[in-house]
Amino acid sequence: MDFSPDPRTAALTEQVRTFVHDHVLPAEPVLDAQLAASPDEWTFRPVVDELRATARAEGLWNLFLPSERGAGLSNLQYAPLAELTGWSTRLAPVAFNCAAPDTGNMELLTEFGTPAQQERWLTPLLEADIRSAFCMTEPDVASSDASQIGTRIRREGDEYVISGRKWWSTGAMSPDCRLLIVMGKTDPEASRHRQQSMILVPRDTAGVRIVRPLTVFGYDDRDHGGHAEIVFDDVRVPAENLLGAEGGGFAMAQARLGPGRIHHCMRALGTAERAVALAAERARTRSTFGVPLSEQGVVRQWVAEARVELEALRLLVLKTAWLMDTVGNREAMTEIQSIKIAVPRAVQQILDRVIQIFGAAGLSADQPLAEMFAGARALRIADGPDEVHLASLGRAQLRA
Amino acid sequence: MDFSPDPRTAALTEQVRTFVHDHVLPAEPVLDAQLAASPDEWTFRPVVDELRATARAEGLWNLFLPSERGAGLSNLQYAPLAELTGWSTRLAPVAFNCAAPDTGNMELLTEFGTPAQQERWLTPLLEADIRSAFCMTEPDVASSDASQIGTRIRREGDEYVISGRKWWSTGAMSPDCRLLIVMGKTDPEASRHRQQSMILVPRDTAGVRIVRPLTVFGYDDRDHGGHAEIVFDDVRVPAENLLGAEGGGFAMAQARLGPGRIHHCMRALGTAERAVALAAERARTRSTFGVPLSEQGVVRQWVAEARVELEALRLLVLKTAWLMDTVGNREAMTEIQSIKIAVPRAVQQILDRVIQIFGAAGLSADQPLAEMFAGARALRIADGPDEVHLASLGRAQLRA
Amino acid sequence: MDFSPDPRTAALTEQVRTFVHDHVLPAEPVLDAQLAASPDEWTFRPVVDELRATARAEGLWNLFLPSERGAGLSNLQYAPLAELTGWSTRLAPVAFNCAAPDTGNMELLTEFGTPAQQERWLTPLLEADIRSAFCMTEPDVASSDASQIGTRIRREGDEYVISGRKWWSTGAMSPDCRLLIVMGKTDPEASRHRQQSMILVPRDTAGVRIVRPLTVFGYDDRDHGGHAEIVFDDVRVPAENLLGAEGGGFAMAQARLGPGRIHHCMRALGTAERAVALAAERARTRSTFGVPLSEQGVVRQWVAEARVELEALRLLVLKTAWLMDTVGNREAMTEIQSIKIAVPRAVQQILDRVIQIFGAAGLSADQPLAEMFAGARALRIADGPDEVHLASLGRAQLRA
Amino acid sequence: MDFSPDPRTAALTEQVRTFVHDHVLPAEPVLDAQLAASPDEWTFRPVVDELRATARAEGLWNLFLPSERGAGLSNLQYAPLAELTGWSTRLAPVAFNCAAPDTGNMELLTEFGTPAQQERWLTPLLEADIRSAFCMTEPDVASSDASQIGTRIRREGDEYVISGRKWWSTGAMSPDCRLLIVMGKTDPEASRHRQQSMILVPRDTAGVRIVRPLTVFGYDDRDHGGHAEIVFDDVRVPAENLLGAEGGGFAMAQARLGPGRIHHCMRALGTAERAVALAAERARTRSTFGVPLSEQGVVRQWVAEARVELEALRLLVLKTAWLMDTVGNREAMTEIQSIKIAVPRAVQQILDRVIQIFGAAGLSADQPLAEMFAGARALRIADGPDEVHLASLGRAQLRA
Repeated sequence: MDFSPDPRTAALTEQVRTFVHDHVLPAEPVLDAQLAASPDEWTFRPVVDELRATARAEGLWNLFLPSERGAGLSNLQYAPLAELTGWSTRLAPVAFNCAAPDTGNMELLTEFGTPAQQERWLTPLLEADIRSAFCMTEPDVASSDASQIGTRIRREGDEYVISGRKWWSTGAMSPDCRLLIVMGKTDPEASRHRQQSMILVPRDTAGVRIVRPLTVFGYDDRDHGGHAEIVFDDVRVPAENLLGAEGGGFAMAQARLGPGRIHHCMRALGTAERAVALAAERARTRSTFGVPLSEQGVVRQWVAEARVELEALRLLVLKTAWLMDTVGNREAMTEIQSIKIAVPRAVQQILDRVIQIFGAAGLSADQPLAEMFAGARALRIADGPDEVHLASLGRAQLRA
Repeated sequence: MDFSPDPRTAALTEQVRTFVHDHVLPAEPVLDAQLAASPDEWTFRPVVDELRATARAEGLWNLFLPSERGAGLSNLQYAPLAELTGWSTRLAPVAFNCAAPDTGNMELLTEFGTPAQQERWLTPLLEADIRSAFCMTEPDVASSDASQIGTRIRREGDEYVISGRKWWSTGAMSPDCRLLIVMGKTDPEASRHRQQSMILVPRDTAGVRIVRPLTVFGYDDRDHGGHAEIVFDDVRVPAENLLGAEGGGFAMAQARLGPGRIHHCMRALGTAERAVALAAERARTRSTFGVPLSEQGVVRQWVAEARVELEALRLLVLKTAWLMDTVGNREAMTEIQSIKIAVPRAVQQILDRVIQIFGAAGLSADQPLAEMFAGARALRIADGPDEVHLASLGRAQLRA
Repeated sequence: MDFSPDPRTAALTEQVRTFVHDHVLPAEPVLDAQLAASPDEWTFRPVVDELRATARAEGLWNLFLPSERGAGLSNLQYAPLAELTGWSTRLAPVAFNCAAPDTGNMELLTEFGTPAQQERWLTPLLEADIRSAFCMTEPDVASSDASQIGTRIRREGDEYVISGRKWWSTGAMSPDCRLLIVMGKTDPEASRHRQQSMILVPRDTAGVRIVRPLTVFGYDDRDHGGHAEIVFDDVRVPAENLLGAEGGGFAMAQARLGPGRIHHCMRALGTAERAVALAAERARTRSTFGVPLSEQGVVRQWVAEARVELEALRLLVLKTAWLMDTVGNREAMTEIQSIKIAVPRAVQQILDRVIQIFGAAGLSADQPLAEMFAGARALRIADGPDEVHLASLGRAQLRA
Repeated sequence: MDFSPDPRTAALTEQVRTFVHDHVLPAEPVLDAQLAASPDEWTFRPVVDELRATARAEGLWNLFLPSERGAGLSNLQYAPLAELTGWSTRLAPVAFNCAAPDTGNMELLTEFGTPAQQERWLTPLLEADIRSAFCMTEPDVASSDASQIGTRIRREGDEYVISGRKWWSTGAMSPDCRLLIVMGKTDPEASRHRQQSMILVPRDTAGVRIVRPLTVFGYDDRDHGGHAEIVFDDVRVPAENLLGAEGGGFAMAQARLGPGRIHHCMRALGTAERAVALAAERARTRSTFGVPLSEQGVVRQWVAEARVELEALRLLVLKTAWLMDTVGNREAMTEIQSIKIAVPRAVQQILDRVIQIFGAAGLSADQPLAEMFAGARALRIADGPDEVHLASLGRAQLRA
């Protein structure tokens, strides 16, 4: 057993850390200003393009993608880099072309796409020329139960016809988003996990209707393309737009989730680390009743508990990544569920406490904390609520 | 000991409950539509005036005010009515002219205002012709420690000159807000709790600069006049604008807080009750993996724990109100601190769990939950963070 | 609504408080010495008789019993007295002849006993001449589910024949215990809640075998008659020993539980109050790293949180008692479940924290804390584990 | 980074696992019977000697000791073995001669003892011919603050004279215990961490008075030699009994703590693993209201949360061991404090929940759970309460 990173990971970690501190964090107020200047747009702002150019020049590009079209890093190697992007979830992931949902979509296209699909969609995504969305969640059902999906994908001759209603299609409000990967049922009569398929739908296809943006707490996440509700009203696409095989949708969704969990969890840990750093700075410089916050028992306790939890959870995520790399997602199921349950919950509480250290400023946009909190809170629901994973993990543990 | 309400309270409770369900809750989507139609305004929307007219016609007006100019209710009698307004904090309090910060300001004017001050400001506030703000919190200091207040109120001849920076002045973004009650130091050399005074400042006085609105999580609370940062740049008002005596600011602020805590806590309990009602409805109609949420163990546990906490905390708030009515705020200090600590914390957790029951819908504006959460979260900071009250209460308990 | 106690309750509360402080607490070390001197006995020690004589002379006797054979107090009136007995659960309840399980047994005999049964058993119990046990829990089933009870009570001619195995029969290790009230099934084919009956079994009846004592953590509760495992091996008693009617066992058990919950919960609150008082004294006199514990943030926070919880939960228990007195146990079901869930849980945490304040001394017999903890911990299981009540309460709340 | 164990560790882990399941767990009822047969003795019972012989024959002996006199394992290699001994803390550690406090004492003698000290004490300890105790904690001070130690060690000619009162000297009730390592102040005027020294005191030295045994939640831990209060009344030993140098006591105590924390934490994790295994077995075989416990939501949730916590904390302890092995205790200070804080707390909660799954049986001696709980609870106090470590860790984190 060896807890030291390999040399390439160590070097990349330092490089990304420096980049985040030198380029990304200073770009946040620039983004705020650009957002305020064009409050009604859903596109990326100019500062993003500048960051991307700089990152790419440094070779920090598509770090998430294990294949030779990406950086070729294992999950274990990418994990500490993902953590660092969590210091600025608004800007760092896009700077390195490592932002969800494009990452998962690029993985799908890499693994399951035909050469034609890859040429049309994967290449421009890898170049960051376009963006994409993943349309799985539906308003009318508990989407953690894939068997409830209502969207239908019917074969009609050389075409598939898609009808249904999706929401929380992240990024899809943006005109930069050109591709929707849609999950639906091709065969409602098949066995539970063979009913679903995925299909590629250009966002400008007839019958695709972007209904409205959704908000998370009060945030519309406009700079990331927001979260869309979308109606598919007998949308027709050529049969070759099917991704993978009919009935393979559930398995592909599961495959997509594994690395996504590592990314989400590591980013969340990075977010918490930034919050703790902000808390420490605040605590050193603010006093109540004549005593610096840094000398107050409850503040010390919170910071100590945060440190303990972050260290333990980081190791758990790294081990999960290592298991995925060495024995595969299926063998790492317990750990993949574990990090999905434990990390967002812990990060939410850390953020809640750091907000409390900041007082009212922590609730406002003067600090990144409230928006961070909204993001961590949403993670407890995304990809299925904690409770579904707890029940599933508990059931497995209780089996003889 | 008798836990049954007196007849007048019982009758009013029923009347207000009916009003909230019949008039206020149906007005919420109307408000949303009116907000969407004029997204840049900070004023009350027409639906508020309609509700007010209906409420006033029913005699449901100024219920919070114990004097003969109000409804003449004790704290104990008003408490269950305040709870019911918590079902719709956006519309119910204003419908009955019982919304903070006007309530506390009207109490101050009733108790400490001169007849001239009352005629100019109290009367129109009681008529809901104008609104007001309370300017205490400052960005540069931990405001729970009143000795740190930086705003200065200097006497110069027949005038007072106010200079300082305030924020979180709720309601002050609205042009309907005409009066600012400002807390500042008249004598920084006096003893700790005799340094502060309050003064009445018309919002349109020269030198008053509304700098910007603040947000709570992503919400700007535009329909309530928002939360303003305000600079007072050598603002001059006549000496007769002083409220009460010089050096009486701290004591008046404390007096203002007592009933305010009852109101805030009871409203928060009402908010939680609505959330639990929404959760129950959702749990009855939604299934995952073939099992209705209402039959899932964790949902039952959450709802049960919410019920237990709400019942216990409601009694604690009611007893606090009773103590304030019978032995006064000072003797009720332990209880006033207790409810400030316990209620928002419990309500936040209840809301967090109800959001979890709703999944992604709970994060969005399709349900009132995320906005409720933001409100409950803010209560843990408003009037001093939990931790200040815990430390103070603990210190008192540990005294010999 | 009125939170002040009636005059009789106020007077009795003061009298009992004085008695506990003047007589009971000083008797604890006497009891310890008497236990050490005769470590193998299961009887009450002499100090108990002395306390009883003193209490009886003061008129503090059978306070729990609402009928004219007892003190005639309502549940609401007895509740604060029960709390005070919780300061010394080893000595105060027995001093006033208010100790479980005799209290519940005397209630059963008062309400459901025939005159002959009352003369033979109730009178000596009221005089504290004998003790009794209640035999419900069984080792082989989850006893919170009464339909699982395995003990059989068969009618044979003029006799009933009892066979089965019980455990956690508190008090039954003591030779002073003369009466066992046994719950068993007379008709396993009847509807779920009509299968059970209760029967009076003299402890010296042939076939009754006291198997062994049980321990709670490392405590055998020897001074209270311990907790016995008992085998009933075709035990024959006359038919007139049946308590109430055949099939009435479940309903009688429920009736017995209501007041018992008030007693248990109030005593637990009293225990917690003593622990907090001990903590405050310790915190004032002990320092670490030059700072008295009473000035350390975490200690203040714990004491404050204990105060808040104890105040809220006391009110909830009192309201429950008031509901039982005014509308009956059935209408008070939500509250009876609520206090059963909330009080032991809160008290356990308070005791855990006070132990922490005491350090290793808190774990030892030098302080009453560890034994208190064991008692509170057991309450979370007695009469059904928390989780059964949470599930039941939650289900009721989720009903349309 | 590599999460797989090295081959020797993997092999030893399997060997110890087999030994614990095949030999140690079956020996527990034997120990219980032997304890019941001689309830007044404090010595090890025969079953311990038998286990030791078997273990030694298998080469499983002194596994904890990194030097060539022990098994020569690193902290990282020993950690998983220590975890397995936690399945039976009463028998497994002694079976392998890996039980506290002897382990720490043997480490001290190995590192700081003179050849003569080693010959006299270390050799028989390594052979398990004698036992030893560590006398640090004192009843009159908060022992986590070493500067408060009251015991004095005065040089007088060729002797040292020890006077003071110690308690919680684990193992010292046993006549097998021949050596006491005593911490006291040789120079109260020296700087804070140079005042203390350690000295070797044969238990039969004149002036050593074993006052009494202490209990932990009712348990006297008689099979391990209990926990003694000891008075040192001008106890004289030769000057060569000093361990290490004068003034080196604090540093040696710190050195002793590092590996001890790994051992304690890993054992605690093993204890929790056994509890979870017991819970799973119980949950599969017990039903309430017709539903197996294993299908009840709350049971699944508890087991899942236990799994997550145990996986994360195990990794944190292993990383701490690795840091101690590679960069030393001082550089691992954050992690050593972290595991001390996090592991006992988590294990206590897991045990509390498993007790709840078992109901009343969980409180009794029929299951090992209540005694396990007492052990885990004590860990939160041993070597300084959680709160001291939280404050220290928090302070370090908040430093600029």
